[in-house]
Amino acid sequence: MKFTVVAQSGHARAGLLETAHGVIETPIFMPVGTAGTVKGLTVGELAAPPLDAHVILGNTYHLYLRPGLDVVRAHGGLHRFIGWDRPILTDSGGFQVFSLGELTQIDDDGVTFRSHIDGSLHRLTPERSMEIQETLGSDIAMAFDQCPPGDAEPATVRRAMDRTTAWARRCLDAPRARGQAVFGILQGGADVDLRRRHLDEIGPMPFDGIALGGFSVGEPIPAMYRALDAFAHELPEDRPRYLMGVGTPDDIRRAVAAGVDMFDCVMPTRNARNGQLFTSQGKLVISHAKHRMDTGPIDPECPCECCQLHSRAYLRHLFFAREILYSRLATLHNLTYYLGLVRDLRRKIVAGTLDAPSTR
Amino acid sequence: MKFTVVAQSGHARAGLLETAHGVIETPIFMPVGTAGTVKGLTVGELAAPPLDAHVILGNTYHLYLRPGLDVVRAHGGLHRFIGWDRPILTDSGGFQVFSLGELTQIDDDGVTFRSHIDGSLHRLTPERSMEIQETLGSDIAMAFDQCPPGDAEPATVRRAMDRTTAWARRCLDAPRARGQAVFGILQGGADVDLRRRHLDEIGPMPFDGIALGGFSVGEPIPAMYRALDAFAHELPEDRPRYLMGVGTPDDIRRAVAAGVDMFDCVMPTRNARNGQLFTSQGKLVISHAKHRMDTGPIDPECPCECCQLHSRAYLRHLFFAREILYSRLATLHNLTYYLGLVRDLRRKIVAGTLDAPSTR
Repeated sequence: MKFTVVAQSGHARAGLLETAHGVIETPIFMPVGTAGTVKGLTVGELAAPPLDAHVILGNTYHLYLRPGLDVVRAHGGLHRFIGWDRPILTDSGGFQVFSLGELTQIDDDGVTFRSHIDGSLHRLTPERSMEIQETLGSDIAMAFDQCPPGDAEPATVRRAMDRTTAWARRCLDAPRARGQAVFGILQGGADVDLRRRHLDEIGPMPFDGIALGGFSVGEPIPAMYRALDAFAHELPEDRPRYLMGVGTPDDIRRAVAAGVDMFDCVMPTRNARNGQLFTSQGKLVISHAKHRMDTGPIDPECPCECCQLHSRAYLRHLFFAREILYSRLATLHNLTYYLGLVRDLRRKIVAGTLDAPSTR
Repeated sequence: MKFTVVAQSGHARAGLLETAHGVIETPIFMPVGTAGTVKGLTVGELAAPPLDAHVILGNTYHLYLRPGLDVVRAHGGLHRFIGWDRPILTDSGGFQVFSLGELTQIDDDGVTFRSHIDGSLHRLTPERSMEIQETLGSDIAMAFDQCPPGDAEPATVRRAMDRTTAWARRCLDAPRARGQAVFGILQGGADVDLRRRHLDEIGPMPFDGIALGGFSVGEPIPAMYRALDAFAHELPEDRPRYLMGVGTPDDIRRAVAAGVDMFDCVMPTRNARNGQLFTSQGKLVISHAKHRMDTGPIDPECPCECCQLHSRAYLRHLFFAREILYSRLATLHNLTYYLGLVRDLRRKIVAGTLDAPSTR
């Protein structure tokens, strides 16, 4: 994997990330394809304008449980299983296992958990996570880390950092798929000193990129912004910086200005299905009665098929009728917004016209 | 509306049906778009190859209740509300009101029923049905008829015929949308004598087409086949013949050979969502364990995106994960099969190579 910063504006960077399945232009947003599909969309739609997604994310936890690794292996990996020939990033499975709560037991070696599907008992360790990601054959694998909640005690955060460091070494020692990059993950919550301490441990390791885990996990948003503003640009300049699981359009603008290159979040896709649409005029709640007779588009500035062809009233009707087409069109729209947002940020960085976002 | 038979093979006909929104090549299958959407698909997909649907069906009952006529009217009709500029046929709402069972009270003037959505009380008469269809602005409206179940007593069937005849006159007297055609409906169950008697009443009326209602409503399939074989070709030659709510691929082959031109059925779309796929090798149940590791397509002869790009194992995975994409791909596949079937029948009629289907 090769990463080149092609333009910079303040701390914000425009880059090119070359992977085994093609080049990713950064800053980039990665649509989340949890169980082998970005919910509601075909791979054809994801690759075509206006989405033109450069990379999508797959969830190790979900794919390991269902369909199971033997099925993915029979297809020669996740790309062929889902029919997507562009880059894929896989998470380590850790975050989702930890969020199972009482179904999970963690120790210094790894995590034992019960499947949310059938209650069966499973074990995930750094080695096992890397082995699964090797089978999935993602372009970018993530190190297996421990992510404490946003309201965790400092002692808990420090213990998670120590485990994450020990596990990072084990992940780097594990076999990986041909051409597969591996990113390390920093923990430390919203405490910049802890983040710096963890960077001293993870930064020198031969990871292909560095991710910021442990943000947007329940801490106050201003705390995240302060930490990002102070710290994101201190991450190694020669490697991509990935803010995991974040966030709102404002979060992304702010983090890009702070020096972050990569993002993923279920927000555009999940909120779409729940009736919340992102527009150039702000958020729109499709169930609202005022849209009942509205023959105008969701967003007149949006190039997606939904906005080009359909009215707010039609979308609202489909939403209340629980029609599949609602989820399709809403997901297409929200991802068009998110991918348009990062493309616009990149254009401005390259043109040198990126304004610093207002402080909150 | 203009209908031209361009080729004939036995009783089977290939025709051109010119409507206000374009030409329909018959025999044709009409995908069912109950609530303003063919479930799971965009209008763009419906119009593009391999589907290239020439006409879709909208359900008066559903659209009247939700979104409501004021919403459709604000958009200038159903075409613009759903973004579909090809022909639309609307049913009268009667069949679906009758299938509400205990929520329905029928008399000689019309039907009183309660909404399945909110229990509110409504009244449908021939005039009201035509008024609703006028607002929807379909290219083809259907007369308001009474359709008895397939196991109804002869006296019930005869009473339904009498009501249908009286209501047919009232439908023809009602205002209609500009350029809107109206089809009459024959009842009479599987009894060919009753069908002929009803044709004597409905046939002379100035309807633009004649539909066969009251088939595939619980009667034995061989009884339907016998009636179609004996009777379908006796319908007026100069007008399209529409077999309502039918059916399986075999039903369609048989009915085309008997002289029917138009079909609609929820089978390809509903069965798709329930896991049953139509293929050139017969039916395929996607949940079956034998497909778990199958890297082959649903149907190697199918040109749809699902078969070109995805494996049975992937579809099966999406099915069990209850992913929206499963319903999309399965619906696209099944409709590709149905629309390919009628295109193939038409090609054979034109080429003079249509074999009579085997008798069952």
